[in-house]
Amino acid sequence: MRIALLGATGYGGIETLRLLEGRKDVEELVVFSDRYAEQAIEQVLPQFRGTSLGRIAFSPLAKFHDLSLMDAALLAMPHGEAPKYVERLLDQDVRVIDFSGDYRLPSDLYELWYHAPAAERHAPAVYGLPERYREQIRTARLVANPGCYATASELALLPLLEQRLIDPLRIVIDAKSGVSGAGRNPKMTTHFAEVAESLHAYKVGAHQHTPEIERILADAWVRGREHGGGEFASQDVKVLLTTQLLPIKRGIYVTAYGQLNKEEMTTADVLGIYQTRYEKEPFVQVLPLGEMPEIRQVTGTNLCQIGVHVDERTHTVLAVAAIDNLGKGAAGQALQNLNLMLGLKETLGLQLSPWW
Amino acid sequence: MRIALLGATGYGGIETLRLLEGRKDVEELVVFSDRYAEQAIEQVLPQFRGTSLGRIAFSPLAKFHDLSLMDAALLAMPHGEAPKYVERLLDQDVRVIDFSGDYRLPSDLYELWYHAPAAERHAPAVYGLPERYREQIRTARLVANPGCYATASELALLPLLEQRLIDPLRIVIDAKSGVSGAGRNPKMTTHFAEVAESLHAYKVGAHQHTPEIERILADAWVRGREHGGGEFASQDVKVLLTTQLLPIKRGIYVTAYGQLNKEEMTTADVLGIYQTRYEKEPFVQVLPLGEMPEIRQVTGTNLCQIGVHVDERTHTVLAVAAIDNLGKGAAGQALQNLNLMLGLKETLGLQLSPWW
Amino acid sequence: MRIALLGATGYGGIETLRLLEGRKDVEELVVFSDRYAEQAIEQVLPQFRGTSLGRIAFSPLAKFHDLSLMDAALLAMPHGEAPKYVERLLDQDVRVIDFSGDYRLPSDLYELWYHAPAAERHAPAVYGLPERYREQIRTARLVANPGCYATASELALLPLLEQRLIDPLRIVIDAKSGVSGAGRNPKMTTHFAEVAESLHAYKVGAHQHTPEIERILADAWVRGREHGGGEFASQDVKVLLTTQLLPIKRGIYVTAYGQLNKEEMTTADVLGIYQTRYEKEPFVQVLPLGEMPEIRQVTGTNLCQIGVHVDERTHTVLAVAAIDNLGKGAAGQALQNLNLMLGLKETLGLQLSPWW
Amino acid sequence: MRIALLGATGYGGIETLRLLEGRKDVEELVVFSDRYAEQAIEQVLPQFRGTSLGRIAFSPLAKFHDLSLMDAALLAMPHGEAPKYVERLLDQDVRVIDFSGDYRLPSDLYELWYHAPAAERHAPAVYGLPERYREQIRTARLVANPGCYATASELALLPLLEQRLIDPLRIVIDAKSGVSGAGRNPKMTTHFAEVAESLHAYKVGAHQHTPEIERILADAWVRGREHGGGEFASQDVKVLLTTQLLPIKRGIYVTAYGQLNKEEMTTADVLGIYQTRYEKEPFVQVLPLGEMPEIRQVTGTNLCQIGVHVDERTHTVLAVAAIDNLGKGAAGQALQNLNLMLGLKETLGLQLSPWW
Repeated sequence: MRIALLGATGYGGIETLRLLEGRKDVEELVVFSDRYAEQAIEQVLPQFRGTSLGRIAFSPLAKFHDLSLMDAALLAMPHGEAPKYVERLLDQDVRVIDFSGDYRLPSDLYELWYHAPAAERHAPAVYGLPERYREQIRTARLVANPGCYATASELALLPLLEQRLIDPLRIVIDAKSGVSGAGRNPKMTTHFAEVAESLHAYKVGAHQHTPEIERILADAWVRGREHGGGEFASQDVKVLLTTQLLPIKRGIYVTAYGQLNKEEMTTADVLGIYQTRYEKEPFVQVLPLGEMPEIRQVTGTNLCQIGVHVDERTHTVLAVAAIDNLGKGAAGQALQNLNLMLGLKETLGLQLSPWW
Repeated sequence: MRIALLGATGYGGIETLRLLEGRKDVEELVVFSDRYAEQAIEQVLPQFRGTSLGRIAFSPLAKFHDLSLMDAALLAMPHGEAPKYVERLLDQDVRVIDFSGDYRLPSDLYELWYHAPAAERHAPAVYGLPERYREQIRTARLVANPGCYATASELALLPLLEQRLIDPLRIVIDAKSGVSGAGRNPKMTTHFAEVAESLHAYKVGAHQHTPEIERILADAWVRGREHGGGEFASQDVKVLLTTQLLPIKRGIYVTAYGQLNKEEMTTADVLGIYQTRYEKEPFVQVLPLGEMPEIRQVTGTNLCQIGVHVDERTHTVLAVAAIDNLGKGAAGQALQNLNLMLGLKETLGLQLSPWW
Repeated sequence: MRIALLGATGYGGIETLRLLEGRKDVEELVVFSDRYAEQAIEQVLPQFRGTSLGRIAFSPLAKFHDLSLMDAALLAMPHGEAPKYVERLLDQDVRVIDFSGDYRLPSDLYELWYHAPAAERHAPAVYGLPERYREQIRTARLVANPGCYATASELALLPLLEQRLIDPLRIVIDAKSGVSGAGRNPKMTTHFAEVAESLHAYKVGAHQHTPEIERILADAWVRGREHGGGEFASQDVKVLLTTQLLPIKRGIYVTAYGQLNKEEMTTADVLGIYQTRYEKEPFVQVLPLGEMPEIRQVTGTNLCQIGVHVDERTHTVLAVAAIDNLGKGAAGQALQNLNLMLGLKETLGLQLSPWW
Repeated sequence: MRIALLGATGYGGIETLRLLEGRKDVEELVVFSDRYAEQAIEQVLPQFRGTSLGRIAFSPLAKFHDLSLMDAALLAMPHGEAPKYVERLLDQDVRVIDFSGDYRLPSDLYELWYHAPAAERHAPAVYGLPERYREQIRTARLVANPGCYATASELALLPLLEQRLIDPLRIVIDAKSGVSGAGRNPKMTTHFAEVAESLHAYKVGAHQHTPEIERILADAWVRGREHGGGEFASQDVKVLLTTQLLPIKRGIYVTAYGQLNKEEMTTADVLGIYQTRYEKEPFVQVLPLGEMPEIRQVTGTNLCQIGVHVDERTHTVLAVAAIDNLGKGAAGQALQNLNLMLGLKETLGLQLSPWW
């Protein structure tokens, strides 16, 4: 396949390069950057020295129009950038996967939560969560790759919403993320001396992944397992998302709480539902009864590990999910979507062992 | 004052020594250990080299009976040990503060959650949370120092229970603790190479601090702010406590979620209640609107930092508390209780600046 | 190939499993353990759940004799254990790679530095450093896999000794290692709360890798690049090795200092010597002028990254090497040696990308 | 005393505030900043909320001239800034302590190593290392506070140079520093995700503390223990300083190597020299035979811990020093110098216990 990549020097882009490196089916890779134009990948990102990608030079954005031969373009840039390129790519019949939040929401929700104007968009995007939208992704022209917290939260909660087992109006998601989730640009909040040996919550109740999670879970509630259609069904789902910065490099850990509806359910009951729901999913691993996920078990992979516990005393179900924010939370999922869009084996290049 | 200390070589004991060091009002300090008998504190714990405590030698436990001259004894040993000493101390009219869970619960609850036989106890203990039981602590003979997760959880939630603002049957407490909370004895779970760069939940729904938290919150619900009496009032409070191991040395971060009762409350409303409730408390700092606690702001201190947020969309109130598990979560709180029991200024020796 | 592995549950053994997993040429793998006998690898080491190795059950050591069909046995146990098995394996014509120090030194040196009796040994062992002993390793029956500090130190200094560029009697090696180098058994020295946010030197001037490094460097001095023979040439080389414990999980960083002999040499001169010396070595990467190694660039790989700097003011050459202590410092190098012993492509299964 | 502080919001400045807070002898503290003018310290630096300093507002630099009532001014700004203020302060008879390198070296050396023009300076500065220049500091108008690596290196090596025990032309200093040493301004090199789990050397042989260390050690060689005079004696001392970035927040660990001159010396011999040399020094702790410093034993303090080992095999003496880069490496030492300059008890406000 022939791939174009923008934003290769952010953490999402770097992880994309790492996962593409060594794939024998990448005939051509074009990477764009004005800042590093003409420099080789290995000059800018020494970890690719001596690899198959190392010698590829960054092209200036001025050469961006020449992409009709590309099969797909991956846009791994910060919010607000992708719209500058998406239309041109779609016009040239290039499939697009966007890592940002720019295409995940309707304009009004986007503006409310991202505090930025939504780009004018003519392109409908498919939400890039294969575990629910596999068939739409296969035929999509534009895929909006989900947010990292969103992926972990949705995978943790989908079975409960699809089966309508919990109250959809009072879902609590307590999420912790490693520092790479805040991006590669140095900021005070990611300074080692400010992060190490501490933990704190931020953007409480205001994190922009909230509406995204609500839409996906609402769609799950309405449609159950059958995904159908392009339009989202609307059912109120209300989520309180608390995000916290963890003093580690990579990883997301989500503990999600839902109130069980009147039914008497045990952990074994709910676990059975999760196991059935995800048994065919290559990148979702439901742990046995009594086991809880660990970030290190998924670091470096595209895997989402899930653990479940029903607390009968409070009628609460706790669903725990661990992912690598750069793996299943960004680049891994993007390449999983790419495989689907290009009709390749879904797991191609993503059978990775954890950095454990 | 004359103090005896058992378990001086565990993390709680070491922190106690650190806080006692330099207090001019410690006339005598006796530390017990069979393992290190006759060795000086500074030989066993080099951090006390050259300090006022450094030269004190550990006494063997055989000399334990000679304590009638002591004002108080601090027992910082693992669960199950304190009962061997408590009766003798009380008989000699020595006040006792026990760091373990052995005296925090009625026997039946203890045995259910600690999976160990409750010692036969004739001594009623006062629960060592000054923010609720200050007056009882002043006159107590035996104080059960609260668990670390319990302290953070209770301080985070007390105002909500006292004012009956949330549903007491469905409280969620998502707690994260640094590694020193697991004790100084080396185990696989605290091995650096197993902990770094990861996070995981453990003892889900089964952590032994759960019944302790429930009793204190139930007492708050029934009695409101008036604490009165020695016996706990009984009102069902049900808590789901999820504990997670954080890759840091010290610190506890609790995000507690309660469902607001029908009342329309804003963050400002609830914050006002917290500010009023804690305004006179020297060791509880309620942060301004919009600010959330950070572990590093309390590391090395006896402070509990609290932040509050009402999510109107889900009618959920999020109360966040950060403490140092060895500070307000153990030794700091023990010395705060000691000051009360001995009629000293409550903040004596505890005005500490954070390790920030 | 058919491989037997003892000590699979220590860090060296676990890393060996990680590197073997997915190799299509492993027809049979037998793992031994009395402690976990009959349990599957994935039960004991969850990171192998769902992998090609996961279902393999540990065999009790009683079944150890049945190994004549094996091509090789890897012994990844602590010092003092391997001799119990080596003779039996060699008698059955099974090739052996031992990870411990038991076969790296003559008995007298071993006893002096390891403070333990040297096993009676009839088997001559080849020192498992391919960059110097490739030909002997190819035909060896028993390979003594080098120590982790030793590998980094030797690769850093070999060109200087082979070319006799520095004074061999006054070599300084300042080495820092991540915590996994201390082994998986929990000890106070590897307790997270004791390690994080600190650094300290240990076994100063007494680390047991010292004589190993001296022998290899002496052999390099005497023979230059031509390795020849089985016996070590003797030339005094004296090394002061300072080892320090680094608060990271994996990695070794060595800064080695040698005093240049009278010749006028620049950094470019010495760098040229290193580049020539290592140009054909697949697992040694000499960095360009002005660049220094970084641990993270080699984590998870079998690579040794080297940087060189000549300080003309002090006539000192600084040679810096970074390796992963579990990679090129243990399991990676063991499998590199295995490939050589079995006549396979040397880099088979070891073309790994760094965990960066 | 009345103190003015510039650069209060860098790590050196913040640590200065932390150490001044609670000192009863600070009658007035004026802090300057254009960026935060009119804001209170506690608004900009929340760790000072509720402290005696918290309410002090930053003054704009325009008000800088009004300082004649001040006893001293502490300049904790990056290199190149202090000269803008020093002359004015000295003219007003205010004593000055400068944290930067601007006044530590003669202009020619400064320009060579700092790659920046040396400010025109009329003010002779006293090098702020009390362990050598105590008497000059007492009467100094301008003190150049030493660099962090420099302090640790000098304290580690002074006794050896004063006694001429090692070859002064070939000193090796292998230094490791925590991340706060790189400053509070976010940069890629201090981004948590770039630092954690790694180590690397930088500015090899080119670190600007090199000439500073050489001058102080040369002065020690020539004058021995008698310090005398203002002018530095010149004797060639040549140092190779290798600096490495450690994945911790605070702390410096220096392993310095010197070649013993012909004399036969044992570790006990050299240790005795260190103990005699430093026995009266309140902030230098020479450890007993066989013990090596640990960063965590000095974190948060103004202490320098030293360990010594003579390796008889290579005739090398290893001197190890650990300090807190913000403590004895910056603010702690500055306040020690301030106490001397103002005729106060040297240890006032600096009797701190380690964050251990």
